[in-house]
Amino acid sequence: MQHNNNQNVSFANEPYRDPDFTINFKAPFNAEPRQDVLVQQFITPTEKFYVRNHAPVPDINGESYALKVDGLVGNPLILSLSDIKNKFEKVTINASIQCAGNRRTMMSEYKKVRGVGWGIASLSTASWSGCRLKDILEYAKVFTKTEGALHAVFWGLDFGCPEDNGKPYGSSITMEKAMDLDGDVLLAYEMNGEPLPRDHGYPLRVIAPGIIGARSVKWLDKVTVSSQESESFFQRRDYKIFHNGVDWNNVEKYWDKTPSLQELSIQSAICIPAPNSTLYLPFTITGYATSGGGRKVERVDISLDGGETWDYAELMGEDKGVCNKYWSWVLFKYTITQLPQLQNKDHQKIRLVCRAWDSASNTQPKDVKDIWNLRGVMNNCWHFVDITVLNQSIKNKL
Amino acid sequence: MQHNNNQNVSFANEPYRDPDFTINFKAPFNAEPRQDVLVQQFITPTEKFYVRNHAPVPDINGESYALKVDGLVGNPLILSLSDIKNKFEKVTINASIQCAGNRRTMMSEYKKVRGVGWGIASLSTASWSGCRLKDILEYAKVFTKTEGALHAVFWGLDFGCPEDNGKPYGSSITMEKAMDLDGDVLLAYEMNGEPLPRDHGYPLRVIAPGIIGARSVKWLDKVTVSSQESESFFQRRDYKIFHNGVDWNNVEKYWDKTPSLQELSIQSAICIPAPNSTLYLPFTITGYATSGGGRKVERVDISLDGGETWDYAELMGEDKGVCNKYWSWVLFKYTITQLPQLQNKDHQKIRLVCRAWDSASNTQPKDVKDIWNLRGVMNNCWHFVDITVLNQSIKNKL
Repeated sequence: MQHNNNQNVSFANEPYRDPDFTINFKAPFNAEPRQDVLVQQFITPTEKFYVRNHAPVPDINGESYALKVDGLVGNPLILSLSDIKNKFEKVTINASIQCAGNRRTMMSEYKKVRGVGWGIASLSTASWSGCRLKDILEYAKVFTKTEGALHAVFWGLDFGCPEDNGKPYGSSITMEKAMDLDGDVLLAYEMNGEPLPRDHGYPLRVIAPGIIGARSVKWLDKVTVSSQESESFFQRRDYKIFHNGVDWNNVEKYWDKTPSLQELSIQSAICIPAPNSTLYLPFTITGYATSGGGRKVERVDISLDGGETWDYAELMGEDKGVCNKYWSWVLFKYTITQLPQLQNKDHQKIRLVCRAWDSASNTQPKDVKDIWNLRGVMNNCWHFVDITVLNQSIKNKL
Repeated sequence: MQHNNNQNVSFANEPYRDPDFTINFKAPFNAEPRQDVLVQQFITPTEKFYVRNHAPVPDINGESYALKVDGLVGNPLILSLSDIKNKFEKVTINASIQCAGNRRTMMSEYKKVRGVGWGIASLSTASWSGCRLKDILEYAKVFTKTEGALHAVFWGLDFGCPEDNGKPYGSSITMEKAMDLDGDVLLAYEMNGEPLPRDHGYPLRVIAPGIIGARSVKWLDKVTVSSQESESFFQRRDYKIFHNGVDWNNVEKYWDKTPSLQELSIQSAICIPAPNSTLYLPFTITGYATSGGGRKVERVDISLDGGETWDYAELMGEDKGVCNKYWSWVLFKYTITQLPQLQNKDHQKIRLVCRAWDSASNTQPKDVKDIWNLRGVMNNCWHFVDITVLNQSIKNKL
């Protein structure tokens, strides 16, 4: 593959974006929806879906586009978009995609980390349609594991990633995930029933559900079957969790011996009310919870006292993939009608906390301090929101 | 199936047991090996393998034994032991089995829970041989999911479980797990290359790797394919995690809406040194780490300061099942050659802590308080051992 090493990359031809986005980085464009908007619906409207780019958005002609499949295959392929649409079964799944850096800002508040400063909304949920990566790889007569076929390596067409000397974005997943019929890995050409928009990978992207968003490569140029994982910066020098003794002075000796992130862990966050809100009773807490690897979110616990006592929230939107695994978030609600602490007071400050549990009995760690890591990834500690509740009855007496 | 409701169960015919066991309950027999012995080898010697029984151990004649397979199948079966050995492929996997109540005693120290008071050694690892449950169910022409086949329900031959009115032990797993070629669920007739001993289920038991030990039913009498999970006490009224507001007065309203435990979560413990040891430098910390669902233990962190700073332990015994999933624990080692705090002192008290991370970035919760639950299950909080380190150099000067 030829790489364009010209670093004078241009952002002059970016697509139109929703003006309501919270923009964390303008060029490349990285933005998340408002958190209250995010949980208004199970499927995120396309224009509200968070955007995580690493370079200018390519402007690709779908008519002349071609996907290459090479490496450890008996029958290397060059497929047009219509080949992909017509030769392989069309599959639709609902899946949430979450950036491994979701909630990084909170991690930085404890101790500074490097990376895009995401709030709690660098995840969204869409309905994705495309063909199975597995079907394409079988058509290419993919080698077996014993023949060395261990990783499906993806390259994008977004030349100009500054972190990787102007190369396009690249990443890989294991062949186990790629070839698992229950893995639901798609090469998607539709999002919410329409062709992919440019910001989400037109004309073709990977959707690898249950694993970090960084592996769902957009503007897919090529799939190489390899005995090694991707050599991209984004696989080898990013998206890894270290222990808290690793810093920018000693990190070099840790990169190679620390595994690349793949499956997501259990996660949840309160999206409504917003931090520092002032509210009357009754009010409703709304948020999302999600887990990786197809594991089901079994429950979400809510605490009104900072994590001393808990109750179950109501879960909405249970949704299985074609293979019976859980690739989509659940939304949760919890309504507070009374607050004993509020009696005979004008107001009461309280800390709302949420945490989720998945079908493998995994739950979220309590403190960000305990999972702090240099790259600020996989922050899934308990999420809390401090609010003030006003006493309506006292106000009525005024 | 006929149940023997006679509760005058007799423990007169129990098998011989290793005298070195820590016995937590004598009748039914519940015992764990010494924790230092446990981590001496990757495969636990059969006589050291922890034992969790619910009733007297049945004394079954392998010659006349018959396994029944019924329920949602087109071809109900009655199979002799030699049918099982000769008609179906023999498969061998290494797998750790862990009781969901492992480390319950520590949970009880925070706040009393009910159940066998396990230390940290109610798990062990063996090599299991048998046929795939999947192969037997296919031979029985099992119905599809859409035809209602959702659970594989197991009954044992250990009549006389007091919790369930004298019925035998029963439990179930999902058909997804049962029929997953990558699930490695066995009907095992050998343990470490020998016929199962009576305490471990002679002549046939379930081995459902990656999920709680309670689902690996011993002395298997019958497999019933059903649209419902097992109606056994042990499925419906036990082995569930509640939030900390659930107690014995209000638990009835929570049983049915709380899912039965299946997959294990990430777990680790320090087995050597023992708590309250007094040691000279250098010394080595040894322990185990394991995760559920076939997830790999990616790393084990060790802290010498109670969890403020961490370093990676060395992992030993990485071991994949036939399907490339990780069903066995890893053992870990970490050698301490110096201790800065010890300088110019006679001794230093330190708190050693371990915690593991799996391939889905799940890690253990810090405090037992935060995961406390009425049944005392799935205690996987950070494990710590308080020890005293003596200053050899000062001693030498005496």
